[in-house]
Amino acid sequence: MIVILKEHPEQTQLDHLMGWLKEQQIEVHPTVGAHQTILGLIGDTSALDIDLISALDIVDDVKRVQEPYKNANRKFHPEDTVIEVGGTKIGGGNLTLIAGPCSVESEEQIVGIAKEVKASGATILRGGAFKPRTSPYAFQGMQIEGIRLLLKAKEATGLPICTEIMDASQLPLFEDIDILQVGARNMQNFSLLKALGRTRKPVLLKRGMACTYQDLLMSAEYILAGGNPNVILCERGIRTFETYTRNTLDLACIPSLKKLSHLPIIIDPSHATGKSSLVPSMAQAAVAAGADGLIIEVHNDPAHAKCDGPQSITPDAFDSLAKRLHRIKDALAD
Amino acid sequence: MIVILKEHPEQTQLDHLMGWLKEQQIEVHPTVGAHQTILGLIGDTSALDIDLISALDIVDDVKRVQEPYKNANRKFHPEDTVIEVGGTKIGGGNLTLIAGPCSVESEEQIVGIAKEVKASGATILRGGAFKPRTSPYAFQGMQIEGIRLLLKAKEATGLPICTEIMDASQLPLFEDIDILQVGARNMQNFSLLKALGRTRKPVLLKRGMACTYQDLLMSAEYILAGGNPNVILCERGIRTFETYTRNTLDLACIPSLKKLSHLPIIIDPSHATGKSSLVPSMAQAAVAAGADGLIIEVHNDPAHAKCDGPQSITPDAFDSLAKRLHRIKDALAD
Amino acid sequence: MIVILKEHPEQTQLDHLMGWLKEQQIEVHPTVGAHQTILGLIGDTSALDIDLISALDIVDDVKRVQEPYKNANRKFHPEDTVIEVGGTKIGGGNLTLIAGPCSVESEEQIVGIAKEVKASGATILRGGAFKPRTSPYAFQGMQIEGIRLLLKAKEATGLPICTEIMDASQLPLFEDIDILQVGARNMQNFSLLKALGRTRKPVLLKRGMACTYQDLLMSAEYILAGGNPNVILCERGIRTFETYTRNTLDLACIPSLKKLSHLPIIIDPSHATGKSSLVPSMAQAAVAAGADGLIIEVHNDPAHAKCDGPQSITPDAFDSLAKRLHRIKDALAD
Amino acid sequence: MIVILKEHPEQTQLDHLMGWLKEQQIEVHPTVGAHQTILGLIGDTSALDIDLISALDIVDDVKRVQEPYKNANRKFHPEDTVIEVGGTKIGGGNLTLIAGPCSVESEEQIVGIAKEVKASGATILRGGAFKPRTSPYAFQGMQIEGIRLLLKAKEATGLPICTEIMDASQLPLFEDIDILQVGARNMQNFSLLKALGRTRKPVLLKRGMACTYQDLLMSAEYILAGGNPNVILCERGIRTFETYTRNTLDLACIPSLKKLSHLPIIIDPSHATGKSSLVPSMAQAAVAAGADGLIIEVHNDPAHAKCDGPQSITPDAFDSLAKRLHRIKDALAD
Repeated sequence: MIVILKEHPEQTQLDHLMGWLKEQQIEVHPTVGAHQTILGLIGDTSALDIDLISALDIVDDVKRVQEPYKNANRKFHPEDTVIEVGGTKIGGGNLTLIAGPCSVESEEQIVGIAKEVKASGATILRGGAFKPRTSPYAFQGMQIEGIRLLLKAKEATGLPICTEIMDASQLPLFEDIDILQVGARNMQNFSLLKALGRTRKPVLLKRGMACTYQDLLMSAEYILAGGNPNVILCERGIRTFETYTRNTLDLACIPSLKKLSHLPIIIDPSHATGKSSLVPSMAQAAVAAGADGLIIEVHNDPAHAKCDGPQSITPDAFDSLAKRLHRIKDALAD
Repeated sequence: MIVILKEHPEQTQLDHLMGWLKEQQIEVHPTVGAHQTILGLIGDTSALDIDLISALDIVDDVKRVQEPYKNANRKFHPEDTVIEVGGTKIGGGNLTLIAGPCSVESEEQIVGIAKEVKASGATILRGGAFKPRTSPYAFQGMQIEGIRLLLKAKEATGLPICTEIMDASQLPLFEDIDILQVGARNMQNFSLLKALGRTRKPVLLKRGMACTYQDLLMSAEYILAGGNPNVILCERGIRTFETYTRNTLDLACIPSLKKLSHLPIIIDPSHATGKSSLVPSMAQAAVAAGADGLIIEVHNDPAHAKCDGPQSITPDAFDSLAKRLHRIKDALAD
Repeated sequence: MIVILKEHPEQTQLDHLMGWLKEQQIEVHPTVGAHQTILGLIGDTSALDIDLISALDIVDDVKRVQEPYKNANRKFHPEDTVIEVGGTKIGGGNLTLIAGPCSVESEEQIVGIAKEVKASGATILRGGAFKPRTSPYAFQGMQIEGIRLLLKAKEATGLPICTEIMDASQLPLFEDIDILQVGARNMQNFSLLKALGRTRKPVLLKRGMACTYQDLLMSAEYILAGGNPNVILCERGIRTFETYTRNTLDLACIPSLKKLSHLPIIIDPSHATGKSSLVPSMAQAAVAAGADGLIIEVHNDPAHAKCDGPQSITPDAFDSLAKRLHRIKDALAD
Repeated sequence: MIVILKEHPEQTQLDHLMGWLKEQQIEVHPTVGAHQTILGLIGDTSALDIDLISALDIVDDVKRVQEPYKNANRKFHPEDTVIEVGGTKIGGGNLTLIAGPCSVESEEQIVGIAKEVKASGATILRGGAFKPRTSPYAFQGMQIEGIRLLLKAKEATGLPICTEIMDASQLPLFEDIDILQVGARNMQNFSLLKALGRTRKPVLLKRGMACTYQDLLMSAEYILAGGNPNVILCERGIRTFETYTRNTLDLACIPSLKKLSHLPIIIDPSHATGKSSLVPSMAQAAVAAGADGLIIEVHNDPAHAKCDGPQSITPDAFDSLAKRLHRIKDALAD
C-alpha cells in the first residue's frame, strides 16, 4: 500500500501514523521529495482499512498495490480450485455444462428437459424455483414446490441441481440442493454471503451488473473467509449503454480472473445476451477463451416459458451446440 | 404497450395472441403496413409480462408506453406523499435535514453529534449500526449495541432515528427505529423489500449504483404493493467512469422522479461524492433543484471516524451549510 | 415509428401533425384508448427527424420501430459485403488477419515485423504513423515519415497497409494506403466521415468507447450515404467500470452486427484489453463468435515499443495464435 | 509516480531502468519488501510516458501520483483564469449567461432571440451554424449562411457569439466569431485541438460523453500547450444507463474541476437533460454548486425548432429563470 501525504504534513500527526502502522506490523519506507512525501507500506496490508487512512488530515491519497483479498487470491493459492459435485468436477481443465429451464413449471417439464440435456452432455441441471423479478407483478417462481420438482428431476436423472437462493432464511429448504446460486442483484447482499460462508455447499456467485473483478472477488472472499472454500465465479453480463443485448458479456473476465484467482469460472450467455439467437456464438467464444463451464437456459417450448423465454434455446440447439463446444475445446490444445 | 410483429406472422399464432390479450381485458388495435404490423394494446398493461409476449415466435419487439409501476406512479396519485415521522414531515414542500455520523461508535459520540446537528436544524438523526462493507475484513458496525446507542440518542434529543437494515431477519431489532434505510446494494433484494412491504415503517430506499429511475420505482412498488405506503426515495450517486468522485450524483433525478412519482426524494451528497470538500456544494445544488431533503454525514472528528471519514463534515460546517440551504430554498420562490 | 400523444391532444395541432405526415408520404394509423392515443406511422420513416416530432406540444414520446440507417441495414442488403484489398477478401466467411506494430519506429522494424507476420498468415499490415494520444506530451507517431516507411514495407512484402487517418486534410498523404482506419475517438467526427464518403477507399471504422451498435452503424451510414460502400466495422472495446482491462471487449457485437448489417466485422483484442497476456484468448473467442477477422498488435520487442507496448505480442506468440485460430474456425463447421 | 516491480526483478534490467530515469532528471527512491519492491519517482514526471514504463518486463504496475497535465493544473496556476470576450468576463466569480437557439434558422429568428435573451441578462449569444448530427439524414445546420446570420445578430445587439467549429479547415470562416465551441464528440479530435492551440480565440471545450475530468483537462492541455490560454470547460452531461434524461448531468464536476484547475466552468443543462422541463432546476443547481456560467437553449417557438426542440425553453421562461439564478447566487454568500 502506498500513502501519498499532503505537502508539509504536520510532524506529530505523521509520527502518530508511523507509530500506529508499526503496531499493525507494517514496515514503512518514506520517499521524500521537494513537494511530496510518499510512504511505501510493506507487510500484510489486506486487513488495513483504506478509508481510515484516507481520512487522516495529512493524507492526500492512498493506493493499494496488493489485492485486498487473500483467500480468493491466486498468489497465495497457486493451484486451481476444483469443486466436486455429484460426480462432476468443476475447474481444473474440465468443461462443465449446466443446463435447464429458466423456471421450473411442472414435473413433466423439468424431468423432460433434464433427460434431454443429460443426453446432450450436461452434467448439472439448472432451474429457477425462487425467481428475483424487477416487477412485483411478474411471476415469482413456483418457490417451495419448485424445489420439490427439481429434486424429482434429480431422482429421475441423477443430475445434481443448481438453483437460486434469495435469502439466508431459505437455507433449510436447500438442504438437498447441490449448488446454491447467488444472483447478480444479491452479489453484495453481505448477510446472505456470510450465511453461505457458514455452510460447505458449493456456491455459484454471479457478478453484479456494475461490479468489477475486484468487487466479485471481495464477495467471494466473504464466503471463503467464513470457511466455505467452494465458490464458483459466474459472469452473466454487465450493464453498459448498449440496449440491443440485455447486458454486455465481458469474456476478458475469464483469463483475468484466472490470473487473479484460483476459483473456477462459469459463463452464462443466456442472461448476458437476453436473446436465444446470440447464445450459441457467445457460448463458443467463452469456451475459446478458456471458461471452466457454461450455464445455459434450455426450454422445450421457449415461446411459452413462464419467464425469460426469449433467451432460452431448444434441446436440439443445445445438443448441436454441446458438440461444437467440445470440438472448440479440443482445437485449443497446441 | 406496443407489440411489433415480425414480417408475415403466422395467422393462427396471431389469432391465438389476440384471443389471449382479449382474455386479459386488453383492447388490441392493429396497424398493418406493407412490411410491418404493429399492435397497439390499450388497457391496464402493468400486469402483462413483457417477457412472455416477447418470447412469441411472431413477435419482433415489445415496447411499453405506460410505466410498469402503479402505486408509485404520479399519474394515479397526483398529490405528493407526505410522510410524518416523530413530528417532522418529509415531502410536500418541506426541507428535511437528516444528519449524523456514518457509524455509531460510542454513546458519547452519538449523543454529542445528535445534540449538535439538532441545534443546527436537523430533525432526524442518522447513524450506522449494521454496516455493509465490500471487504469482510473492514469494520462491520457496532450492530445490536449500535441500535441501543441510537435509541439512547433519541431519548436524549427527541430526534427520530434513521438507520440501515440489511436483512429481513433483523426486523425485530428495529422496532423502535423510525426510518429503515435500504442500502444501494440491497435495492433489488426482493426478499427484504417484500418484508418491508408487510410493515408500516417509513423506508428510505437508496437507488442502486447502476439502476435507472424506473428500476428504483419498481423497487418502491414492491414495498407499496405490499401495503406500506411510506417510501422515501434516495439518490446517493451512480457508478460512472469518473473516479475522482466515489460516485456521480445525478441531480436530474429530482425533477424527473417528482414528475414520475408522488414519493418524496432525499439526496445523499456524502456517499455520492466520497469527499467532504464536495458535500456543501452538492447539498446546495440539491436544494436548488427541488429536493425534499438531505441526508448528510456529520462527525465531530472526521479524521478518526471508524468508516467513511473522508466524506463527513464537521458540526460547524454543517451549521453554516444548513443556514445557506434555507437561504437557497427561499431564493427559489418567484 | 410510433408517436404516443399526450392525454387530450388539441385537435388543431393533431390535424396539423397528421397533415404534415401525409405530405412526407407516411401513412398514419391511430389507436385511441380511454387515456391514450398512439399513432402508428407506416412508410419510409428513416428521413423523419425524430427530434422534430418529439418537440410538438401534443407528443409525449416517439419510438422508432425501424432502424434509422438504410445503406448499412441487412434488411435492404441481405448479402454480406465482401471487400477486396490487395488480393485479400474481408467478409463473406473469410478469416482475415491484420497484424503489425502499434507505431512505425524505423524501416528495419516495420519491414522486419511485416515479413514475420506475413510468414504467420497475416494478409494485411497495420502500423501507426499518426498516433492520437490523450497527452500532448506523449509520442505522436512518425507522421509523414511513418507513411513512407509503411509503403516501404508494402513494397518489400506485398502486404496491403492499414493505418489511421486523423483528419480529412491528411487524405492526399494516404493515396497509396489501402485501408484508412478511423479511431474510436473520431467515430463521430462527422467532417472526417463525410470526406471518407467521397473516396472509394476501404475504411476500418472503430466503435467509439461509449457508442452503441446503432451509433456505429449511423457513422457507417455517413460514409455509405456519401457513396463509398467499403466500410469495415471494428470493435475495440468499450468503456465500463472495470479497470483491470483497458476497455471491455463486447464480443456479442459480432452476431448482433451481422444480424443488423451486411458489413464485415473485425475485432481488435489488443486495444480492447491493453494487456498482451489477454490477447490470445480474446482473439480465440472472437473467431469462435464468428468474426470476419482480427487486427492484432505484434512487436518484435514489446518492452521497447514507443507506445502501447504492454498490449503487443511477439511474432512467435502471433505465429502459434494464428494456427490456433484456424483450428477454431474449422471446429465451428457442423 | 510509483513503479511497482514484479517479484524478483532481473538486476540488469533494474539498473537499466534506474539509469534511464536518472537521465530524465528523476530521483528514484526504492522501497524493498520481502515480496515486492516499489520505486518512488520524484521530479517532473508529467513528460514520462507511462505506457513505456509499464511495458518493461520487470514492471508490474505504474501509478501516477501527480496529475499528467501542467498548464491546466491549479497547483501551478493558483489564480482563477478570467477570460474577457466582448466586454464580458468569464470566470473569477462572475455568472455568465450564454443563451440562444440550438440552430440558426433565419435572420428574423436569430436577431429576435438575441434581443430577447439580451434583455433578460444574457451577455453572449449561442446558435448552431454547423451541426454535428448522428444521422446523415438529419438537418446539418445552415452552415456558412448560419455564420453570416450570427454576425448579423452580433451587429444588431452587440452580443459576442459562441458557435461550434467541427473541423480545423473551417477556421477562416470563424474569424469574427468570439468563442469557438468544440462539441463533446470532438473533445478528443486532437487535430482540431492542436489547430485551436495555434489561435488565441476563446474555446468552449465540451466534455465527451464517456470522458473523465482528467480526460477533459488533458484535452484542454492540448490547447494550452499550443499557446492558447483561453479555454473554458463545459459539462453537458455524460452517458449513463439512465434513459429518461438524454445524458446525466454531473454537477460535482464544478467543485472538482475548480480544485484541479484554474479554468472557468460553464454548465449546459439543455443538452444534458434533453428535456426543457428539467432545464430550470438543473440551471439553478449549477449556480448553487458554483458554476461560472450557463449555456442555455432558448427558442421563441420550441415546437418548430429545426433541431433539439424538446430541450429549448421560451424567452419568457429564460427571463424568470435568469432572475432566480441571480437570487440563488446572492444566497450563497455567507
